[in-house]
Amino acid sequence: MRQEQIEPSINSISGGINYPGVAREPDGESASEPFGERRRTLGNAVFAAEKMLVTRMLQTIGNPPVQIVLWNRQVISNHNGKAVARVLIRDHGALLKLVSDPELYFGELYSAQRIEVQGNLLEFLETAYRVWPQHRQGNSGKKLSAPFYDAQRNTLSGARRNVQHHYDIGNDFYKLWLDERMLYTCAYFPSSNASLEDAQLAKLDHICRKLYLRPGEKVVEAGCGWGALALHMAKHYGAKVTAYNLSSEQIAYARQRARAEGLDGQVEFIEDDYRNVRGEFDAFVSVGMLEHVGTDHYQELGAVIDRSLKDSGRGLIHSIGLNYPRPMDAWTERHIFPGASPPSLAQMMQIFEPFDFSVLDVENLRLHYAKTLEHWLQRYENNVDRVTEMFDLEFARAWRLYLSGSLTAFKMGGMQLFQVSFARPGHNQIPWTRQYLYEPQHNPLGEYDGNL
Amino acid sequence: MRQEQIEPSINSISGGINYPGVAREPDGESASEPFGERRRTLGNAVFAAEKMLVTRMLQTIGNPPVQIVLWNRQVISNHNGKAVARVLIRDHGALLKLVSDPELYFGELYSAQRIEVQGNLLEFLETAYRVWPQHRQGNSGKKLSAPFYDAQRNTLSGARRNVQHHYDIGNDFYKLWLDERMLYTCAYFPSSNASLEDAQLAKLDHICRKLYLRPGEKVVEAGCGWGALALHMAKHYGAKVTAYNLSSEQIAYARQRARAEGLDGQVEFIEDDYRNVRGEFDAFVSVGMLEHVGTDHYQELGAVIDRSLKDSGRGLIHSIGLNYPRPMDAWTERHIFPGASPPSLAQMMQIFEPFDFSVLDVENLRLHYAKTLEHWLQRYENNVDRVTEMFDLEFARAWRLYLSGSLTAFKMGGMQLFQVSFARPGHNQIPWTRQYLYEPQHNPLGEYDGNL
Repeated sequence: MRQEQIEPSINSISGGINYPGVAREPDGESASEPFGERRRTLGNAVFAAEKMLVTRMLQTIGNPPVQIVLWNRQVISNHNGKAVARVLIRDHGALLKLVSDPELYFGELYSAQRIEVQGNLLEFLETAYRVWPQHRQGNSGKKLSAPFYDAQRNTLSGARRNVQHHYDIGNDFYKLWLDERMLYTCAYFPSSNASLEDAQLAKLDHICRKLYLRPGEKVVEAGCGWGALALHMAKHYGAKVTAYNLSSEQIAYARQRARAEGLDGQVEFIEDDYRNVRGEFDAFVSVGMLEHVGTDHYQELGAVIDRSLKDSGRGLIHSIGLNYPRPMDAWTERHIFPGASPPSLAQMMQIFEPFDFSVLDVENLRLHYAKTLEHWLQRYENNVDRVTEMFDLEFARAWRLYLSGSLTAFKMGGMQLFQVSFARPGHNQIPWTRQYLYEPQHNPLGEYDGNL
Repeated sequence: MRQEQIEPSINSISGGINYPGVAREPDGESASEPFGERRRTLGNAVFAAEKMLVTRMLQTIGNPPVQIVLWNRQVISNHNGKAVARVLIRDHGALLKLVSDPELYFGELYSAQRIEVQGNLLEFLETAYRVWPQHRQGNSGKKLSAPFYDAQRNTLSGARRNVQHHYDIGNDFYKLWLDERMLYTCAYFPSSNASLEDAQLAKLDHICRKLYLRPGEKVVEAGCGWGALALHMAKHYGAKVTAYNLSSEQIAYARQRARAEGLDGQVEFIEDDYRNVRGEFDAFVSVGMLEHVGTDHYQELGAVIDRSLKDSGRGLIHSIGLNYPRPMDAWTERHIFPGASPPSLAQMMQIFEPFDFSVLDVENLRLHYAKTLEHWLQRYENNVDRVTEMFDLEFARAWRLYLSGSLTAFKMGGMQLFQVSFARPGHNQIPWTRQYLYEPQHNPLGEYDGNL
């Protein structure tokens, strides 16, 4: 950002601003009066210092076209009148924090109302996402190395702490904005205008059919959430399910649902770590747990799958993923999902390759997650007052930002959703093509007799 | 293999043997006469040494249940009467070579008729495959590192030499056993009893539809074989295709076909390396070339794709693959496919991850390749006399073994066939689900308007 580009826009954009906590709107200034009354009052030195800080901060994040309004009603803009949003910075300390680490502190300051975004938050996030330098790094073609920043974090005790931070917030909170089955993972929309309820149901079937589950088969689920998939496999596919989860709240809810549906003889919910899975199974499934495993533990997970699966065994892992290895953004990692780190596909292969598993199918459902988040965000906004009552405004704003930022990342291609199906290498009882997934009544193994 | 297990079977299995070059069948020996006339004649010391060599060789390859018959009509077996085949070793030098490196020399000696396999060659290979220690290594759960044994091999000049070794054998040779379109890559069988011709046609459509090609779009193909896919994209999808190949014989054939079909204005065949691709395209496609690129050159290939694709660009790479990184077997690498090395999926990601490409879809067509090879092998055997006339018996036997061994590896799960579809990260004009691939008349982008 060059000085001469800033000067005119500072003056041309300043105008009527309305936000809480600032009683009087700043006076309009004409473009012909580049340094008006206010600047003279504040003093050149202070104004220059603040402007420099804002300029540096905007440079760090790739110069999104925004208008910055400071606590003292100074207005700084970097794009001649085409700002996508106004960002109000409400105190000097907030500006200093933002300059030092915008990725970490934007979220904290937004949650604490020390930063306000006027305009469409999603549009603002999309614009910021588009110019953010880190998101452009992938195209450099540099050798990328997997960051193992989360080593030691997801030990047995660490994983329990991390999971409880997020999932034990309270079932009542999640009920406000999830679907009726309480599925807190990417849905599968057979068409883009399907309802969230239908799309979550379709997701359960999509997974069961990818596993070509047969009645009486034994399935182990690692990270079962509130139990919807486990119950669905038991009820509609006749499977005997053993499901693991570290969240006490979720396990209690799942057990109660199993009893209510009379499925408690067919589904066992175990409050324990995936590393303690015991027994031999026909299928392994894990939906939305891998994000919390940590890349350093993938081979350990592979070993658990390897010792749990029969020779005819197959499995599916559904996880948020990345196009290339990088750490999760600092704010989300600290405040929303401690210990989480979505993998690249190459990193995911550390689960399968050491154990000679064959990857049969990978489906990227990125836009389905963006659509899922649209539904969640809308329901969340409809209930944001209730969230504020249950917790406080800071929590409510943090989760709004988290849902909005996630939607943006999936929509803009910064995050992926991988469903990876796999089987033992010599196992030939696999569907001949994937066509059966799209033909509701077809038996996938009907045509194939086990020999070529 | 313990001594006491061998002793009885040596005697119990020796019996009627019939193979060329040995005039007289060995005399039968009864189990009650453990060391008969022949052994006494040959002398204990010589027999013991040969038995030790055979024993060691069988141990090295995991003790497949075979009967070994030596040039001197000695019979050695390691499984009580349940041999899957008789392997005749016709001279002392052959035995020594086999002991020193069975993976490399079995093929050489088989081709040279110094080893003969009596019984079903495919059954023998399957059995040998099943017990081969290297094929069991994947289950050890050890940290695997990618072998970069092929560095420096696929330089610009090296790649040309390697490709010409295999693909310039002569179009007449390949015509004897490929389909009418001359497709020398895995077919896609919509049902397992489809004909090879239908399955190769279905493969071409499957690829074009995965790329959701639209009329007038520009496609670059890296490694175009005899041009069938390039011509198909032009003729049936209205694409403008630029296709690269290093094989002079294939390029000449492809150009002639383009002229014959009146497509030479729409398809350009260029005899050059993929690294010399120039221009900007809507789609990148490569079918059966990656096996020859060498893992050390994947990032270079990624850079070529990155500079060739528009922002709305997408691509597909179809390649033989592995469940975990390992070198190709020594004989195939030396005699059939110099410079070739199929990648694991993690290795393939070295193409995509440094350039922030999104992997949209991976389909493993392993059993389709086994089926393809069944067809090829059958046609090959029908024409093996013609192959022997065109070349010699050694060549004909080498290619029988290569086709049979490949069929075995795909059937047993030792090799995979990955079709990987990818696109730029922010590109949202992608089909909403994969259902359209299984509905011939459906426009994949019809439902989706580019916004969520």
